[in-house]
Amino acid sequence: MALADIIAEQRPARPGTPDALADLRVTFGDRLVTGEDVRRAHSHVTTYIPSQLPDAVLFAESEAEIQDLVRICAKHGMPIVPFGTGSSLEGHVNAPFGGVSVDLSRMDRVLSVNPGDLDCTVETGVTREALNSHLRDTGLFFPIDPGANASLGGMAATRASGTNAVRYGTMRDNVIGLTAIMADGTLVRTARRAKKTAAGYDLTRLLVGSEGTLGIITRLNLKLYGIPETILSGVCAFPDVTNAVNAVMQIVQIGVPVARIELLDALSIRATNTHAGMTLPETPHLFVEFHGSPASVEEQAELFAAIVEDNGGGSFQSASKAEERSRLWKARHDFYWASMSLRPGAKAIATDVCVPVSRLADCIDETRADAEAVGLLAPIVGHVGDGNFHVTLLIDTAVPAEIDKAEAFMARLAERALDMDGTCTGEHGVGQGKRGYLSRELGPAVDVMRAIKTALDPQNILNPGKIFTSQ
Amino acid sequence: MALADIIAEQRPARPGTPDALADLRVTFGDRLVTGEDVRRAHSHVTTYIPSQLPDAVLFAESEAEIQDLVRICAKHGMPIVPFGTGSSLEGHVNAPFGGVSVDLSRMDRVLSVNPGDLDCTVETGVTREALNSHLRDTGLFFPIDPGANASLGGMAATRASGTNAVRYGTMRDNVIGLTAIMADGTLVRTARRAKKTAAGYDLTRLLVGSEGTLGIITRLNLKLYGIPETILSGVCAFPDVTNAVNAVMQIVQIGVPVARIELLDALSIRATNTHAGMTLPETPHLFVEFHGSPASVEEQAELFAAIVEDNGGGSFQSASKAEERSRLWKARHDFYWASMSLRPGAKAIATDVCVPVSRLADCIDETRADAEAVGLLAPIVGHVGDGNFHVTLLIDTAVPAEIDKAEAFMARLAERALDMDGTCTGEHGVGQGKRGYLSRELGPAVDVMRAIKTALDPQNILNPGKIFTSQ
Repeated sequence: MALADIIAEQRPARPGTPDALADLRVTFGDRLVTGEDVRRAHSHVTTYIPSQLPDAVLFAESEAEIQDLVRICAKHGMPIVPFGTGSSLEGHVNAPFGGVSVDLSRMDRVLSVNPGDLDCTVETGVTREALNSHLRDTGLFFPIDPGANASLGGMAATRASGTNAVRYGTMRDNVIGLTAIMADGTLVRTARRAKKTAAGYDLTRLLVGSEGTLGIITRLNLKLYGIPETILSGVCAFPDVTNAVNAVMQIVQIGVPVARIELLDALSIRATNTHAGMTLPETPHLFVEFHGSPASVEEQAELFAAIVEDNGGGSFQSASKAEERSRLWKARHDFYWASMSLRPGAKAIATDVCVPVSRLADCIDETRADAEAVGLLAPIVGHVGDGNFHVTLLIDTAVPAEIDKAEAFMARLAERALDMDGTCTGEHGVGQGKRGYLSRELGPAVDVMRAIKTALDPQNILNPGKIFTSQ
Repeated sequence: MALADIIAEQRPARPGTPDALADLRVTFGDRLVTGEDVRRAHSHVTTYIPSQLPDAVLFAESEAEIQDLVRICAKHGMPIVPFGTGSSLEGHVNAPFGGVSVDLSRMDRVLSVNPGDLDCTVETGVTREALNSHLRDTGLFFPIDPGANASLGGMAATRASGTNAVRYGTMRDNVIGLTAIMADGTLVRTARRAKKTAAGYDLTRLLVGSEGTLGIITRLNLKLYGIPETILSGVCAFPDVTNAVNAVMQIVQIGVPVARIELLDALSIRATNTHAGMTLPETPHLFVEFHGSPASVEEQAELFAAIVEDNGGGSFQSASKAEERSRLWKARHDFYWASMSLRPGAKAIATDVCVPVSRLADCIDETRADAEAVGLLAPIVGHVGDGNFHVTLLIDTAVPAEIDKAEAFMARLAERALDMDGTCTGEHGVGQGKRGYLSRELGPAVDVMRAIKTALDPQNILNPGKIFTSQ
């Protein structure tokens, strides 16, 4: 969706807002924060989309409080924008129509860990790093890792994934059940704690990825995994991106259960070297990780090495010590910030297409040629085992011609992915930025989504202006 | 739900039915079948729930035909009941309010197989055995195996799983996207072919498990897997069920990636010996299977043997040859039919609770004691790695006191599972039989489901009387 349209969508304050705020203040007193700094910090800060401030921020401390908030807002038709850590990339926490940003970071208790069932129950504001710290002595971990230290509720709401989705799946696959507060204030628990169920509609999966538009997620029952007996990470250089991607396609096709397999092109390596103080040669690399028993990891690494060699890649530089591994993956995860070192002062726009793996090399090749042809500084990194890659566009948003160029490029990228039967967003979500592509991608399915939205939130108070352009 | 209530729910023919049938005949001619034999074969035949016949059967041959059917039925408010192979166990294909049974078995083309992406696209009527036959020369297979040679569309509609869900997941995890015809005749494709997506609501997962109440599934894009290099199956005897289940719990907890791990209690072994001509000692057994490289399978089998020994189990009797494996799993899969040999003339009622694995031993122990106390012949088999087990009740449905006893037992079983944070149905679905437990299990979440049903099928023409007692 064009940036100009997103900006134009922002409305002046709603006439009923002062009454709604007065009502909210009766219940929440000074805890309803209306200072501009706090409101600004709760509108969108990570991406190129400008901030659209809520009218107030409530730091919620319990499900009951959120129920009160929703009921009061429903009475006034006041929008509610759920806020985890603000690390999403498509304007999810912006408030184009004002309303209350409900900050969930204080709901940060790990409620139970059940080693016997390999699951845990957490409040929505627990971050993935906090959960893994909590689990440290149990031998278990939660694998989903989108890079940012996001809240688990936010990760569920945006159906996040990241580097090790290739082995462990996305949030879709790792939420057993959840609790959410719906647009009328009802608290709903979507599933019990059994590993599988056939009891009615899969409301868990409906709320995962609904971006706060159907309900406010308050608790999550999550799958956990045993920390692998052996973990082997490493990097491998390639003469060019096509060779690297061909190797990935073969690895996926023969079914090596690689835990992570990430592409960084030459430009991304340059940025990462600068930002993380690394000294990798400035050619495309795969960053990989294997999990399993010693024998299984060895087997995987051997298969990987053979395929890499067949595709002209260099030798595997392993990082088996925990601190080396941490450094490697921190460098990968910080890429979004590192990319900005390529053009100081520029904003980074992270694109997010995902295509069938068999089309990945074509899609990346055409995309690189396109960026070169129009003269965009556009490093590419990707969760290539899933067919998902991010072209990061570094642009000066003060120059309208640069915005136009970037938007035209993004539109072509989305079309290219759709032509290959892929999606315009593999993991970042639709938010404000991808709304324009949704109908082209899914056609009448979008009407079904709208019908569900209307049925469950007839006033459109839950995160309006996200996923759909309604209101 | 009490059998008497299900029977009482059946209505006399709707007044508009003759007009609807006349309209349908204009479009479909003699292909609209109204003979009683065909109608009876399309109402429920597998379980104890009596057949409730549709007014007509249409053997659909294309999506366009189903769209025509739905539009005509919508005009007349005529129910439509999708029919795959009729192997479901909860009355899903019954027609309590009449209407048209749409037989999908002629939509049986495998449309594409994409080895490079490990996926395929099939029409809804392809059975799982037909798909695996089609895949024979590709080195790939589709793992989900509910026992019956069900249609893949039916398996998706009921969120089926079965013996190897413990490793490969259920239909929830293995449908990448699907095409369905909604209640207004619109054809909707829920997702493209990318391995992951964050593009809006997860309509794929909403339709998987919706039991034909939200849309008629016409195509499926399914995940495929490489046939494992090594497969090792076998059986292992235990002195009692508790020991066997304790072994399973430990295997799951240490994360052995077992492909199947099935419990059969002593009574089930007796039935299986009789029906399949086997000669296993009449004590509880685990039937297991390991998939992987030779080294990985050996590692798994060693871990398994050690845990079995710790829990008082006997030695592992392996079946590594393909025909021995087939015989073993055929015996397991035919258990539903085998169980009837325990009481010739009786009907078998298959229960289907699923609990967190840590509660499985308790749940099975209490359930066995209950069956013994009330004098029910009740063999137990289970997909125990998932916490899912089936107590099969063998009763004479002509004797009201037996029905009462069975229903009271089932109600206690469901309550027991719910008290352990489990579900009343792990894989069979709600259908007609489990409607009475849904509210107790999910509370206000059922109202959310109803709101979605009403939004997407306001006339309630798609498989009415399933999941909900509405109409």
